Amino acid sequence: MIELFLIGIGTGNPRHLTLEAIDALRAADLVLIPRKGPGKDDLAGLRRRICREVITGDHPQLQEFDLPKRDAAHPDYRAGVDDWHDAIARIWATEIRAGLPQGTGKVGFLVWGDPSLYDSTLRIAERVAADLPLRLHVIPGITSIQALTAGHAIPLNRIGAPVTVTTGRRLRDHGWPGAADSVVVMLDAGCAFDALAPEGIDIWWSAYAGMAEEIRLAGPLAELAPRIAEVRAEARARHGWIMDIYLMRRRETAAG
Amino acid sequence: MIELFLIGIGTGNPRHLTLEAIDALRAADLVLIPRKGPGKDDLAGLRRRICREVITGDHPQLQEFDLPKRDAAHPDYRAGVDDWHDAIARIWATEIRAGLPQGTGKVGFLVWGDPSLYDSTLRIAERVAADLPLRLHVIPGITSIQALTAGHAIPLNRIGAPVTVTTGRRLRDHGWPGAADSVVVMLDAGCAFDALAPEGIDIWWSAYAGMAEEIRLAGPLAELAPRIAEVRAEARARHGWIMDIYLMRRRETAAG
Ligand SMILES: C[S@@+](CC[C@H](N)C(=O)[O-])C[C@H]1O[C@@H](n2cnc3c(N)ncnc32)[C@H](O)[C@@H]1O
Ligand SMILES: C[S@@+](CC[C@H](N)C(=O)[O-])C[C@H]1O[C@@H](n2cnc3c(N)ncnc32)[C@H](O)[C@@H]1O
Repeated sequence: MIELFLIGIGTGNPRHLTLEAIDALRAADLVLIPRKGPGKDDLAGLRRRICREVITGDHPQLQEFDLPKRDAAHPDYRAGVDDWHDAIARIWATEIRAGLPQGTGKVGFLVWGDPSLYDSTLRIAERVAADLPLRLHVIPGITSIQALTAGHAIPLNRIGAPVTVTTGRRLRDHGWPGAADSVVVMLDAGCAFDALAPEGIDIWWSAYAGMAEEIRLAGPLAELAPRIAEVRAEARARHGWIMDIYLMRRRETAAG
Repeated sequence: MIELFLIGIGTGNPRHLTLEAIDALRAADLVLIPRKGPGKDDLAGLRRRICREVITGDHPQLQEFDLPKRDAAHPDYRAGVDDWHDAIARIWATEIRAGLPQGTGKVGFLVWGDPSLYDSTLRIAERVAADLPLRLHVIPGITSIQALTAGHAIPLNRIGAPVTVTTGRRLRDHGWPGAADSVVVMLDAGCAFDALAPEGIDIWWSAYAGMAEEIRLAGPLAELAPRIAEVRAEARARHGWIMDIYLMRRRETAAG
């Protein structure tokens, strides 16, 4: 029986690692490290660094593999993603069989942030499980939501009030989500808040949250929107990539 | 200048601690540990245990203090909570002044889960800061949301879809939150899902998530609701306390 550990590693700060994640990494026989191809390898680099810092002795075996490219020209977006996940799952199965030829042992896979949040690893692991008998374990990790609120030293929610987590695409297409009080936006290809009427909304924005490069801006959306767009474009050009996340709240009026 | 570190410690599993949290604890001169009074001291016990396991040498100084009781008879609930937070902030300031009489140093405070999520510590720290000059730092921690999804090995969101986090009280008073897709319920005094028409809803429920006592149930809400009520009452009676959290999703119909 193979045991597969999806290990949340936090959002780029190697000190986000939990003791449980370190235990799982050290106990692994095989750690799979995906490579996205030239110019996109920041994450493979971080994964390698974490393994180097945390693993003592020569156990486990680190196995790198190239991720296939998604067929962006696929006529059906959802089916294209499905095909891509199938292809990745086949590679995982091949790498696991090669790394553990006796068909038993512990496999670790490092996941950015927490494996449950806007990440396809769990769905890929389930496809692998359909093909190769395995037991799945998830080790929670610090998410970019926590890295955002910690950096700004703010609560995620107002007292007793709900929080909505959504994507840049949905914010752009559907606007402010219904009666939501606090809204977190992730996976934003670029300033989806521009789709909102900014009056009365405050924003807390972070790029590279938790990392040495972290940038934070906070204030009224009406004032900050152009500034964030500028800082974001500049940082993206300088680093070659960007990850950003933000929280928005409607200001409480005197009445309520 | 005093530096105050609010340190997320995860949800009861001492292995949830991050390396950053350990660094902050070890660097502290003073760690404040609140006591809730007889029969409620599970958390003080966990805080002491974490300090014992993590801190090497005799630094920092651990200082325990009794939390005041909230005036449950206060005619205005919100004002009663405000008064209570003021009283706690005054005690923090007194303890910090006593522990760091030279008026400088690092103070650590351990927070269950993550300090940003349904927790009053950040609001109390801001009151202390109004009284005593200090710089506030937040160290993110594993939340009960991550402990829930990790235990069940499930994603928090459907692909590209939003997530709403809310409280038991709101679910009871307002029902299913608008067009929400995935709903996480916290701070539920008991089975608020009973207020919903259960047909077509799936639930993933965890009590003591991440702890040795963890209990998990998952399935269609229509079948599970009475079972969860039973297991919850029994566990609560046995342990003397309970913390539970759950995720619900409407089943996707063949059409959508
Ligand atoms: C594919 S999702 C993965 C989320 C991850 N599983 C987590 O727990 O945070 C990627 C999105 O997460 C957010 N994100 C991840 N890491 C981040 C960071 N260090 N700073 C800012 N945003 C980040 C961004 O919104 C980004 O578009
Ligand atoms: C005052 S809030 C604190 C939340 C905490 N800051 C966090 O990050 O999870 C307490 C609520 O969190 C949830 N909770 C906290 N720890 C839990 C655990 N170990 N198992 C299940 N639920 C938990 C429950 O819904 C509980 O009512």
